[in-house]
Amino acid sequence: MQRVDELDTPVMVVDLDVLEGNIKRLQDEVDALGLTSRPHIKTHKIPTIGHMQLAAGAVGITCQKLGEAEVFAGAGFTDILVPYNILGAPKLERLTRLARRVRMTVSVDSEVTARGIAEASQEAGTDVGVVVEVDSGGHRAGVQTAREVQTLARAIADFPGVSFQGFMCYPSRPQMTDLWAEARDLLSRDGIPVNVISGGGTGAQRLSKENGCTEHRSGTYIYNDLSVLRSGNCTLEECAMNVLVTVVSTSCPGYSTIDGGSKTFTNDALRQDDALRKGDSNGHVREYPDVFLERMNEEHGVLSLSRLPEGAPRPKVGEKVHVIPNHACGTTNLHDVVYGYRRRNGEEIIEAEWPIPARGKIR
Amino acid sequence: MQRVDELDTPVMVVDLDVLEGNIKRLQDEVDALGLTSRPHIKTHKIPTIGHMQLAAGAVGITCQKLGEAEVFAGAGFTDILVPYNILGAPKLERLTRLARRVRMTVSVDSEVTARGIAEASQEAGTDVGVVVEVDSGGHRAGVQTAREVQTLARAIADFPGVSFQGFMCYPSRPQMTDLWAEARDLLSRDGIPVNVISGGGTGAQRLSKENGCTEHRSGTYIYNDLSVLRSGNCTLEECAMNVLVTVVSTSCPGYSTIDGGSKTFTNDALRQDDALRKGDSNGHVREYPDVFLERMNEEHGVLSLSRLPEGAPRPKVGEKVHVIPNHACGTTNLHDVVYGYRRRNGEEIIEAEWPIPARGKIR
Repeated sequence: MQRVDELDTPVMVVDLDVLEGNIKRLQDEVDALGLTSRPHIKTHKIPTIGHMQLAAGAVGITCQKLGEAEVFAGAGFTDILVPYNILGAPKLERLTRLARRVRMTVSVDSEVTARGIAEASQEAGTDVGVVVEVDSGGHRAGVQTAREVQTLARAIADFPGVSFQGFMCYPSRPQMTDLWAEARDLLSRDGIPVNVISGGGTGAQRLSKENGCTEHRSGTYIYNDLSVLRSGNCTLEECAMNVLVTVVSTSCPGYSTIDGGSKTFTNDALRQDDALRKGDSNGHVREYPDVFLERMNEEHGVLSLSRLPEGAPRPKVGEKVHVIPNHACGTTNLHDVVYGYRRRNGEEIIEAEWPIPARGKIR
Repeated sequence: MQRVDELDTPVMVVDLDVLEGNIKRLQDEVDALGLTSRPHIKTHKIPTIGHMQLAAGAVGITCQKLGEAEVFAGAGFTDILVPYNILGAPKLERLTRLARRVRMTVSVDSEVTARGIAEASQEAGTDVGVVVEVDSGGHRAGVQTAREVQTLARAIADFPGVSFQGFMCYPSRPQMTDLWAEARDLLSRDGIPVNVISGGGTGAQRLSKENGCTEHRSGTYIYNDLSVLRSGNCTLEECAMNVLVTVVSTSCPGYSTIDGGSKTFTNDALRQDDALRKGDSNGHVREYPDVFLERMNEEHGVLSLSRLPEGAPRPKVGEKVHVIPNHACGTTNLHDVVYGYRRRNGEEIIEAEWPIPARGKIR
């Protein structure tokens, strides 16, 4: 029986009781709203956890890259959405190979992309589901108006090899209510059925419902992180992911340095306005809530002690502490393995050692 | 014969002619200064490239984690510096295992750390070289004064299982000249020989010499990146690393989106002052020097077109472009493989496909 504090650091550890609670809570909420749940696996990248999400009631999963979909299709998942524009011969070949075995749906925001998928799928003799991505304000992908949705949906409906399924956006936002209604209305007049309207974002399930979605995609809720905590969408007790690190230096006055930096946590900033970010930590140290992770190099995380009350205990060289990172998904992507534990009689007992097979799938 | 533009994206590609030129140039400069060179492998994490650095004249290598040292010791490297405080039973066991086979040197900045290494090394019957780390202003690790160097050096010199070798800092900075001189002087009076004074930083070899160093550690010079370019320490022609990406969306007015984001490039900021950073790109797009990589999500990189001259060509969906990232080392850590190519008759012909075995070695 191994305890978390016996692990070499830095190492990612997940509280299994909290994880299971997060899965149940989200599914209950989405059920109560009358939405289907299609969790995004990018946060954990581990098929075992995906199966827990399916067992709780998810209708399928979301993967952001084909490489992730390949891992999960190989692990028994049969209904996969990749909300991304798939382009180029190598990816189209991989997409149709997947579509021969499992139900694949992808998003598009241009006719160029839709046509490429249709041609590849027709040639392969497969059927790929397609949803139109709409920009909900992030300005990274997605068409802008309901009219553009209609134009693209009409084209997709006419293409062979693909089935138009509906729309999606990320994240759900208040302004989508009118846009979804208008798009639904336009397609209804065209006689093009809309099977799914997919919204997303941890904490945004109620907004997805208000928008008129049928489906909700959440990723980060499974672990939660400092960004979700600071945005008010979880409590400290609902944060399942920790990185255990060791204090390696206290020789610079006013600072303590831990053995995890941007190669362990990423340099992803907190998802909130600059004013808050400036004064906030880049990681919550459970044992020392008053220290803040001021900055990171690849292998160094520098804890500022400037807010510690006079005379308060300070991190010591060799001491191990638990850090909740800014961004769970990015952190997962940097680790090859995660340990699952349960807290029993004040000890953290390790119960699972999970490799992370969909880590690093950039293609 | 495969060309770079036939690769699926995003993918890391390195110009081998430029890489070879960078190795030669740095070695020539360090030779001319009368310093030894101990390149940091964290930028490439590939033994083949490390062997090219040794062949050019490097006396050994620098690794930042034991996991990297294990990969390189297994690939024939026999003289490895790990400039990091090694703490805890698992790491001490791994350090002494390495020290049985190769010459290992580590840095310390506290007696706690030095004593742990000495005890483990004595028990294992090995000898570990130790240098004292001094803070050159980064405030992440290192003792503060020459007197502290002396105190720690005396302790190390008295410990069994370890050999005091000298001092190190990162990066070299003007103020180190006086500190090194004072530390050398104090130890000379103590009769403790100083075998090495090790400075570091790409572009800082001249400063290492002025500081009074005997050795220089450079990492990023091997590939260079946008941070090195912007700091004036390389030219655009000396940037060997590119990430080939595909434009996947042009549907958001004023933007084009590429299929590489923070999971491909990191969110590491440019190493320069905030004023410059605000207006600068998070990646140089070779084909479109006037677009700038404004922001990234994990799988999306958003290129702003706001600075493109009126009527200038714009990135099109499906087009592939070369991006020089902000930070080469962080980017390497996100990729499992890199392709080496040479430009011949206007084509980029692939010559090498290198796995990156020391990627992700966070422990």
